[in-house]
Amino acid sequence: MTDRLDAQFAFLIEADKLKQVIRATTLADGSRRENSGEHSWHLALYALVLADQAGPSVNIDRVIKMLILHDLVEIDVGDVPIHSANGAAHGSAEIAEAEAQAATRIFGLLPADLGTDLRALWEEFEAAETPDAIFAKSLDRVQPVLHNIASGGGTWTEYNVTFDQLETRVGQKVARGAPTLWTYVRGRLRSFFPEV
Amino acid sequence: MTDRLDAQFAFLIEADKLKQVIRATTLADGSRRENSGEHSWHLALYALVLADQAGPSVNIDRVIKMLILHDLVEIDVGDVPIHSANGAAHGSAEIAEAEAQAATRIFGLLPADLGTDLRALWEEFEAAETPDAIFAKSLDRVQPVLHNIASGGGTWTEYNVTFDQLETRVGQKVARGAPTLWTYVRGRLRSFFPEV
Repeated sequence: MTDRLDAQFAFLIEADKLKQVIRATTLADGSRRENSGEHSWHLALYALVLADQAGPSVNIDRVIKMLILHDLVEIDVGDVPIHSANGAAHGSAEIAEAEAQAATRIFGLLPADLGTDLRALWEEFEAAETPDAIFAKSLDRVQPVLHNIASGGGTWTEYNVTFDQLETRVGQKVARGAPTLWTYVRGRLRSFFPEV
Repeated sequence: MTDRLDAQFAFLIEADKLKQVIRATTLADGSRRENSGEHSWHLALYALVLADQAGPSVNIDRVIKMLILHDLVEIDVGDVPIHSANGAAHGSAEIAEAEAQAATRIFGLLPADLGTDLRALWEEFEAAETPDAIFAKSLDRVQPVLHNIASGGGTWTEYNVTFDQLETRVGQKVARGAPTLWTYVRGRLRSFFPEV
């Protein structure tokens, strides 16, 4: 039991570093950039509050677990902003490989049974093929949009994002898991993108 | 649907302020104090990783939800450190009343059905009577102990905490929901408290 708890706490203390990974998106009031630890909490809260936007086959408890885990690999790889490098960095094969190595190291700190289970949840999120993962990804994409609206433009201004780019990089992915949610959020974008 | 989503997002944007509530405990590396948003994420991860420490009647999915919500009232009331005012501030009737008012305001931003459900989960956590709430409280108390061990003393030094005080304010509450966990953590306290 002591060896098992040693491993569980080694992982939990390592995970603490996620609070020092800084994202491109700011807090809603624009006062500072968000870190990936607090972002992960906010997304879990999104799942709890927006569960009624999920399809009937979505298990919201699994979505919440995925969102708690989804950014841990950033401890090694950092956050890759969705609009950086003109949208080409996020999801590249190079980043995917680095994240897989990070997952091996970080989930490998856990007792083997638990590490295998939690890594499988993270891989399911990354693959974005199951209803749970698709809905979790929708929330991960929509939260920065709300922060940019609240803070008056945020990363769209910083990265010169057009509405077409936003629709491709963000809107289509939000709509895939939560179509009504994207229709609603899209309607709030008129003052930022006249072409909406 | 638009009115409902307006209310859900008003709540989610308000909740963002929890990332600006600063706690007494530092990050594990001691580099800065932790905020209550990232703390809430870390505790949800604790529940996911330490689920095997919970008794058979504990529903870990409900524990995770409680931990996501448990500190929201701090947006209005602030964090009350467990060792501040010689241990007398935390859990006082005055603080409890202020937190109840904060819950009315904050959960009141949500659509009524959802606000009622989430407030009930928060009240269950606060009351610490059900197995789920007792286990959630154990995790909330044990995480700062691990950070103080990792950072070399932390708030114990700052507030001149004795081992007896730690046992009363923290140990008994961790042991109530997770006895093996406290036995393990207690064993790691010898270098800080010679009387262990």
